[in-house]
Amino acid sequence: MTETLAPGSKIGILGGGQLGRMLAVAAAELGLKCHIFCPDPESPAFDVAAAQTVAGYDDAQALERFAGSVDALTYEFENVDLGAAQLLAGMRPLRPGARALEVSQDRLAEKEFLTGCGISVGGFQPVDDLAGLQQAMDAIGAPAILKTRRLGYDGKGQVRLEHADDAAAALEAIGHAPAILEAFVPFRCEISVIGVRDVYGACACYAVTENVHRNHILATSTVPASIGAATAEMARATALTIMNELDYVGVMGIEFFVVDDQHDGSDAGGESLLVNEIAPRVHNSGHWTQDGCAVSQFENHIRAVAGWPLGPTERHCDVVMTNLIGDDAAGWNDLAGDPGARLHLYGKREIRPGRKMGHVNRITT
Amino acid sequence: MTETLAPGSKIGILGGGQLGRMLAVAAAELGLKCHIFCPDPESPAFDVAAAQTVAGYDDAQALERFAGSVDALTYEFENVDLGAAQLLAGMRPLRPGARALEVSQDRLAEKEFLTGCGISVGGFQPVDDLAGLQQAMDAIGAPAILKTRRLGYDGKGQVRLEHADDAAAALEAIGHAPAILEAFVPFRCEISVIGVRDVYGACACYAVTENVHRNHILATSTVPASIGAATAEMARATALTIMNELDYVGVMGIEFFVVDDQHDGSDAGGESLLVNEIAPRVHNSGHWTQDGCAVSQFENHIRAVAGWPLGPTERHCDVVMTNLIGDDAAGWNDLAGDPGARLHLYGKREIRPGRKMGHVNRITT
Repeated sequence: MTETLAPGSKIGILGGGQLGRMLAVAAAELGLKCHIFCPDPESPAFDVAAAQTVAGYDDAQALERFAGSVDALTYEFENVDLGAAQLLAGMRPLRPGARALEVSQDRLAEKEFLTGCGISVGGFQPVDDLAGLQQAMDAIGAPAILKTRRLGYDGKGQVRLEHADDAAAALEAIGHAPAILEAFVPFRCEISVIGVRDVYGACACYAVTENVHRNHILATSTVPASIGAATAEMARATALTIMNELDYVGVMGIEFFVVDDQHDGSDAGGESLLVNEIAPRVHNSGHWTQDGCAVSQFENHIRAVAGWPLGPTERHCDVVMTNLIGDDAAGWNDLAGDPGARLHLYGKREIRPGRKMGHVNRITT
Repeated sequence: MTETLAPGSKIGILGGGQLGRMLAVAAAELGLKCHIFCPDPESPAFDVAAAQTVAGYDDAQALERFAGSVDALTYEFENVDLGAAQLLAGMRPLRPGARALEVSQDRLAEKEFLTGCGISVGGFQPVDDLAGLQQAMDAIGAPAILKTRRLGYDGKGQVRLEHADDAAAALEAIGHAPAILEAFVPFRCEISVIGVRDVYGACACYAVTENVHRNHILATSTVPASIGAATAEMARATALTIMNELDYVGVMGIEFFVVDDQHDGSDAGGESLLVNEIAPRVHNSGHWTQDGCAVSQFENHIRAVAGWPLGPTERHCDVVMTNLIGDDAAGWNDLAGDPGARLHLYGKREIRPGRKMGHVNRITT
């Protein structure tokens, strides 16, 4: 699995959204071609790729043709069907591998993997039915968040529980899907680390970003984060542990809660970190690297997938990344005229509420 | 001609080489789509564009279909047939306009335009036949360079004359094409300015670069150039004059010779500038802007073509751009592993002598 792709080679990307689009652009800068596989014929990534397949992720024949046409494979989202991933990995190098998908697409498997690595996470309990949920609430207390084990994103598939009485309604709200109950974490802030690991095991991390979510969707990412140096170092060390444990190849996003330590009622404690979730792909909180670093998360992911050495991850300025969600994108003309705003748009013609239309990086030093 | 293209609009680009490719990538970052028109089915720009037309530049029907499918038009090379340009400009905004092509695709028209603007150029004489060449040599002296008026690039279509005896052979070498004889300019260095002008007439220039050619092909461009501040200012003022005179929209490259003034045999004089040539397009000597500026020449060209406001042109570091010509590109793996080298490859699979395969930007501060 240490094949190196020469310039002119083709990388297959599962998923045609903005992440696939920005990966394809990064690949083009390195002389590599992309083939995008996505069921949506309006996929933003199709506009910047040498080849396109419109087919379902469960279409084995289309997947086989796709894999046969490329030199290496990657994906822009973690909900790739494991059977499909195994089929693809049997034909071409799939980077990151199927193990990263297996762990990250199931919240319970992810928490168990992380605790198995000695990494701290918030309290959690598996939930399969009402009795299990009531048991879990006894163990964890309220408030708590009930989340489906699979296919949740941007706040979808989760319900907050304030009282034990909410249990039945909450299970109903998530359609009685296999779930976990997570303790509510009174975090001071949310941060993330973008790490990257190459086929030889060399690792690097970008600077820690501080993230603000609105309506469960990332609103801003700011570097540097307002955390202590030891906390930042701990976040990066955690990222390295996770990537090494998974024998990971590519970019990974790791989200953390920063919790104030409060011993004996005093507030003199430091900061602790709990991993919230991991994403085995380029990550929205790493979009600042496009304008804050010589080599972006997208180029480094492509380098890793291609078996190339990693590029530098040093930050050369302070940056605030702001997502353009829904109607925010209607202000593109003003943003285009703002000399401090580096505008990135995804080519989606139709503005819809909650839809990520683009982002803006502002250099603040 | 002040139409503004909304995100999701499509820009048609005549020409599918590396310049068209880098323009298409820049357009994608702004949410704009590209349609590339090029007779070569292996065009590097095809890999990053939403639509492709493979047809000759003289295929009026294909040109009409192309123009009908896009919202604005531009080109990556100045040898677009004027008839084709006029056909296109009658259907959609063509930026830069046909006038810029008319002036820049004929060396004689270009020199006459420049001198008409009060801009200094080296000595030149039109040459139509042997008698004319002999007259021109009498006027200009030797050495001198005989160049075809049209379709020369990278040293093609030109012959150096050392003696009057060389005249007949030189005319033979350029196939008796309409030509001009240019005085040999004993320049101290070659520089260029990348200027850009928007649909409302706002102008900006990037920092002056110093260029070194090898075998008539650009080898390196360095910013800052080793010239005085007054010389740099003169170069930028000349760029503005040219762009305003042509009511230009888009990026333009202007190449100059820097000549030492030597009054009365002393060497205490300053520097003078002679314009060598102008290119109505993004320019190889502006590739450093991809890594040295917040907004590259490619993005600013797309902004101008789309009727958007220009982005900032400030330089944030010193840069040396080195072209990867022919076999230079075989060293891609070492360059990929060099943390100081920002590698840009054009996706051309076949290495050929003299072929531009990519470039490297090195940040030197």
